[in-house]
Amino acid sequence: MITLYDLVFRGDRRPSPYCWRTKYALAHKGLQWTEMPMGFTEKDKIAFADSKTVPVIKDGDTPVKDSWVIAQHLDRRYPAKPLFKDEAARNHALFVNGWVDTAVHGALFPILVGDLYERVRPEDRDYIRESRGGRLGTMDLVSFQAAALEKGQPAFRVALEPARRVLKVQKFLAGDAPGYPDYILLSPFLWGHAVSPLKLLAEEDAVHAWRERMLDLFDGMGRKAKAA
Amino acid sequence: MITLYDLVFRGDRRPSPYCWRTKYALAHKGLQWTEMPMGFTEKDKIAFADSKTVPVIKDGDTPVKDSWVIAQHLDRRYPAKPLFKDEAARNHALFVNGWVDTAVHGALFPILVGDLYERVRPEDRDYIRESRGGRLGTMDLVSFQAAALEKGQPAFRVALEPARRVLKVQKFLAGDAPGYPDYILLSPFLWGHAVSPLKLLAEEDAVHAWRERMLDLFDGMGRKAKAA
Repeated sequence: MITLYDLVFRGDRRPSPYCWRTKYALAHKGLQWTEMPMGFTEKDKIAFADSKTVPVIKDGDTPVKDSWVIAQHLDRRYPAKPLFKDEAARNHALFVNGWVDTAVHGALFPILVGDLYERVRPEDRDYIRESRGGRLGTMDLVSFQAAALEKGQPAFRVALEPARRVLKVQKFLAGDAPGYPDYILLSPFLWGHAVSPLKLLAEEDAVHAWRERMLDLFDGMGRKAKAA
Repeated sequence: MITLYDLVFRGDRRPSPYCWRTKYALAHKGLQWTEMPMGFTEKDKIAFADSKTVPVIKDGDTPVKDSWVIAQHLDRRYPAKPLFKDEAARNHALFVNGWVDTAVHGALFPILVGDLYERVRPEDRDYIRESRGGRLGTMDLVSFQAAALEKGQPAFRVALEPARRVLKVQKFLAGDAPGYPDYILLSPFLWGHAVSPLKLLAEEDAVHAWRERMLDLFDGMGRKAKAA
């Protein structure tokens, strides 16, 4: 019995890219889970795991926090259908994890932050304005996004170039079949999907075709997610 | 009998990051090779391989071009001490290859281009000014670099963040021992080493400590390379 604590926005939208990594990890392994939605200001719900951020899972009686640690935990406890079939697969995913967290999220955040603000639960608006605004040096997240968009959208596409190079020559980052590196890279697109109407990719982009393949996985789990 | 065609600058400096990848691939596999230095305007020397860029190798009678293709060729022809022990290792290296070629080279090129111009063989100066200047939209490569430096040096360090995240938790990108992803990432530093006096990394950077480990490999091959 696995419970996943998942960030929730208005209208039951689920934006957290880190939680999406965990959902795809669970689905890849064929595991069932129950979701416990949690707003930004309900961190008391995950205090049992000594965490201030999601994802957190409760696997039986065991609390596990952090999407990367959860992925390792799942492979240890449930060895079938491994996320990391050997050390090289783990090292590949570890690099992609760091790349997405910095280069990809870094390029996406400025062109999403106003939409995040507008779609968060009303009771979480002050929290997101202060935490994200503090990082950006402005409390007006909507104007910040509007100003960032013109340069930010092409810059986001440029940031994806390392993945594009791979996806021009093979179907998935992990080869012929999707793997944890692919779930990591899908997660910022699902973040965008939940809050923003922006077309993040051009249709002729190899990354676009890959994203379509990814959204089909596991009975269209990502495609069915509540959109902006 | 393997011959490597290697780009040469004034004073026998060897800047090509792609050639360095091949040298480390050969050294990793314990193979011997002979180097055939070649200036930018001596492309007739590699016409036999139907290539306009180095590295090119002649392995017995077989010409092979492109550092990535050469690495696959070496593993096929000499299976001992593999560069890619399985498909996951190959996928890891393929991603890092695309990342270094775009994000890392892209951040390094503007702060190196004037030094490249000043250290190229005199007979290759027009070639590099026109080919690189065409890309940058100016024929004055030295002034371009001087103007790029203030923002470019910190931007280069930021671009390395995905590698830094990995190297804070393990010795090499490939794990406990260096692998082809590490050789790929070392190559832009050897490019810099050959032409530029710039301190590309702060000493407290985890990437700096990793680079020191890399420069020690194979009897200090990279450390001994002719510097700017």
